[in-house]
Amino acid sequence: MKQYPRSLNKLINELGKLPGIGGKTAQRLAFHVLSLTDREAEALAESIVEAKRSLHYCSVCGNLTDKDVCGICSDASRDRSIICVVETPQDVMAMERIREFKGTYHVLHGAISPAEGIGPADINLKSLIERLQGDSDVEEVIIATNPNIEGEATAMYIARLLKPAGIKVTRIAHGIPVGGDLEYADEVTLLKAVEGRREL
Amino acid sequence: MKQYPRSLNKLINELGKLPGIGGKTAQRLAFHVLSLTDREAEALAESIVEAKRSLHYCSVCGNLTDKDVCGICSDASRDRSIICVVETPQDVMAMERIREFKGTYHVLHGAISPAEGIGPADINLKSLIERLQGDSDVEEVIIATNPNIEGEATAMYIARLLKPAGIKVTRIAHGIPVGGDLEYADEVTLLKAVEGRREL
Repeated sequence: MKQYPRSLNKLINELGKLPGIGGKTAQRLAFHVLSLTDREAEALAESIVEAKRSLHYCSVCGNLTDKDVCGICSDASRDRSIICVVETPQDVMAMERIREFKGTYHVLHGAISPAEGIGPADINLKSLIERLQGDSDVEEVIIATNPNIEGEATAMYIARLLKPAGIKVTRIAHGIPVGGDLEYADEVTLLKAVEGRREL
Repeated sequence: MKQYPRSLNKLINELGKLPGIGGKTAQRLAFHVLSLTDREAEALAESIVEAKRSLHYCSVCGNLTDKDVCGICSDASRDRSIICVVETPQDVMAMERIREFKGTYHVLHGAISPAEGIGPADINLKSLIERLQGDSDVEEVIIATNPNIEGEATAMYIARLLKPAGIKVTRIAHGIPVGGDLEYADEVTLLKAVEGRREL
């Protein structure tokens, strides 16, 4: 049985390492790459190397940036009295999409997970403490970690750490998503929605 | 609203051009690329450029190869009296996987489709005719184009073209897939299966 040429096998193999890309999809993508013009294929390859080369974490908040300090931290119009703590740079983008939050962020790059052996020292938490110690203007820390076991554990840990220092620590609300259906909500979400009820 | 850094947006954009990769998946893949080591990211980028650079079509059969003549055409043990006509290099691999076919191939790189304006001159058909004219040893041409309208039209066209020259032209059988369920077979497949019945 004949195999594909070596360089094609290598491309399929490399594409198959990407998350969620199985063998069949890797093969389909590889043949798509071969159908590109030389210039298009080079643009794809270059964007990979260029992104890897130019991007790193903001020295203040840990968000992804191609500068030393990210666009949000260096923006004078942002409210420095509020810091929103999130797990990933993607979460920063999700928060930015609501176009309402004008504070700054702190990106943990993960969450505390005893089951996976990830402790407070393994996430970008020390720099948050240092940031709070160095900046007395911070009045509120909103914890927007994910509403799962790891996210909740992280939220509890940070709250216990910051409250003695007199900083207001809040947690984003859990509840039924807008447009969601009560009938299909899971019990825990519905319980959280009832617990978090507000007077109209 | 803050955007991602330019090089990250570019990477997401480039990955989003791949078939079947939507915006969310492109973003997930881009963040995966950022999590790779420099060496891993370069290996991925290089495999793209290297595959594009080294691969082209076999001058005899049109299959993908990194040499002038592909491994199958240059293999002296293959039976040159039978040519199997397929639509794509992927179909060659599918045929090779059955480990039974010992003839050679001809890759059309498409199929005749009047609806899409693809005529006989737009697929790799002329070189098949030239190949048959130059090689009087060919006894049979097996047409293994896909069992859809375009594949059938292509099969009929090739059959009409070659039969006057006294070459045996055959078509692969349509029918119920092995392990398939009669109950769930579509009517056309079942009709083809009955039409193609063989005595036991």
